[in-house]
Amino acid sequence: MPPFKTTYRVSWVDTDAAQVVHFSNYFRIFEKTEEEMYTQLGLSFNEIRRKYNFWLPRVETFCRFKAPAKFGDILEVSLTIEEIMDKAVKYGFTIINKISEQMVAEGYVVIVVADKKLGHAVSIPKELAEKLETYKKT
Amino acid sequence: MPPFKTTYRVSWVDTDAAQVVHFSNYFRIFEKTEEEMYTQLGLSFNEIRRKYNFWLPRVETFCRFKAPAKFGDILEVSLTIEEIMDKAVKYGFTIINKISEQMVAEGYVVIVVADKKLGHAVSIPKELAEKLETYKKT
Amino acid sequence: MPPFKTTYRVSWVDTDAAQVVHFSNYFRIFEKTEEEMYTQLGLSFNEIRRKYNFWLPRVETFCRFKAPAKFGDILEVSLTIEEIMDKAVKYGFTIINKISEQMVAEGYVVIVVADKKLGHAVSIPKELAEKLETYKKT
Amino acid sequence: MPPFKTTYRVSWVDTDAAQVVHFSNYFRIFEKTEEEMYTQLGLSFNEIRRKYNFWLPRVETFCRFKAPAKFGDILEVSLTIEEIMDKAVKYGFTIINKISEQMVAEGYVVIVVADKKLGHAVSIPKELAEKLETYKKT
Repeated sequence: MPPFKTTYRVSWVDTDAAQVVHFSNYFRIFEKTEEEMYTQLGLSFNEIRRKYNFWLPRVETFCRFKAPAKFGDILEVSLTIEEIMDKAVKYGFTIINKISEQMVAEGYVVIVVADKKLGHAVSIPKELAEKLETYKKT
Repeated sequence: MPPFKTTYRVSWVDTDAAQVVHFSNYFRIFEKTEEEMYTQLGLSFNEIRRKYNFWLPRVETFCRFKAPAKFGDILEVSLTIEEIMDKAVKYGFTIINKISEQMVAEGYVVIVVADKKLGHAVSIPKELAEKLETYKKT
Repeated sequence: MPPFKTTYRVSWVDTDAAQVVHFSNYFRIFEKTEEEMYTQLGLSFNEIRRKYNFWLPRVETFCRFKAPAKFGDILEVSLTIEEIMDKAVKYGFTIINKISEQMVAEGYVVIVVADKKLGHAVSIPKELAEKLETYKKT
Repeated sequence: MPPFKTTYRVSWVDTDAAQVVHFSNYFRIFEKTEEEMYTQLGLSFNEIRRKYNFWLPRVETFCRFKAPAKFGDILEVSLTIEEIMDKAVKYGFTIINKISEQMVAEGYVVIVVADKKLGHAVSIPKELAEKLETYKKT
């Protein structure tokens, strides 16, 4: 399947004194993309939280920074479901500068599906796993 | 009474592409100072929340930016209790660059004391009002 | 003239432990809206900086918080040019929750047009003032 | 050598709607710790930038989140120099909750030493490498 794609315009507040996007903000761009994907799949974070009483805490993340992005740059963010485990999901991300076609950053985030009441990770509901198949890496 | 004072060292992430502290971050510095004041008064945000089941939502804020602050600058932040109303408190802030002695920013924040269960503002408990007198403007 | 309008979806990272948008983030939403307005006017921040060698530092800002916004909320942000002074511009902002139609926040930001080389405020170029008339309060 | 250690108090703005520190903020805490280490070594970021005309861009980072941290928690952050390469340095970080003694997060950041004028990575100056030996993993 092709990945979920969205675009992100770099704001002034995303930059730092090196006049490039601060590295911590790439993780925020990853998460915004994830939020948009769930909304597009018709199962938003809010619905997951209300319906299943789940959090989706992050347990591990990695990013390689390949080229700087500057204020006003238009970034194309791609999200692929790299792996659906029993209680966890691994998202893969790539960020490309839409003007230069240069790779800006690539990384991953592993989340677990945590039941708020139980306070620990639980098996991913079938409905959620099926939705995530939409953007599964092949 | 003299104001509550603390220092804040400007981090890289606080800056933007103009190589100065992003204006939104002064409000974060204000709030960090408020948190330290409550801790120093022996009645932290957490204790207020647990004991009284209160939030302290902000209802109004203002800031005038007088001079830029740069990465590594040491800022002296002063907090004065400008006014204690029935259900609200007005904090006044000034931020001075400790090296240049220049005024960097000055502003205020008005908070209300909100009961989480009732969902609206309530009268400030006597204990809290008395603590805040410590840094009351005279 | 009608104001410049854009929408903003509240992200998880915008929220705090009160499960609402942190007050400092409204100033970031104001600035993102300003950036979009300049882009829409065909004179982006980047073009202003390159063409005129200007910064647009903020000198004063105010916000009144009327109702909380939560994760996933769609906000409608309106920007009006309240005043064009010789060397400064006052933007007015309102943020409305698109679902509830409730006013979330309203405020203003005053910027100056600063010449990077001279290091001080200068008169607003005619081209810029004319563009800003597009969203001038009447 | 023992690692460089500092403490960090979790602020309200660091938290998100799950009432825990947002994962992106751990990278900011890592960087603040790095800044303090350089200051303590008598060679601040600012001195490095002025003396050598260097940036220290991040090229890779990883973090594993082991337990949530909440508002008001006091975190102990340890920084070890894991590897000094010709043009790069790998920092290792651990964050421990000082009350519960629980491990909160552990990760690493790889930076390169980049000459601003040349626009690419250069060999680490002897003075800098020697300073970093202070906290070298043994």
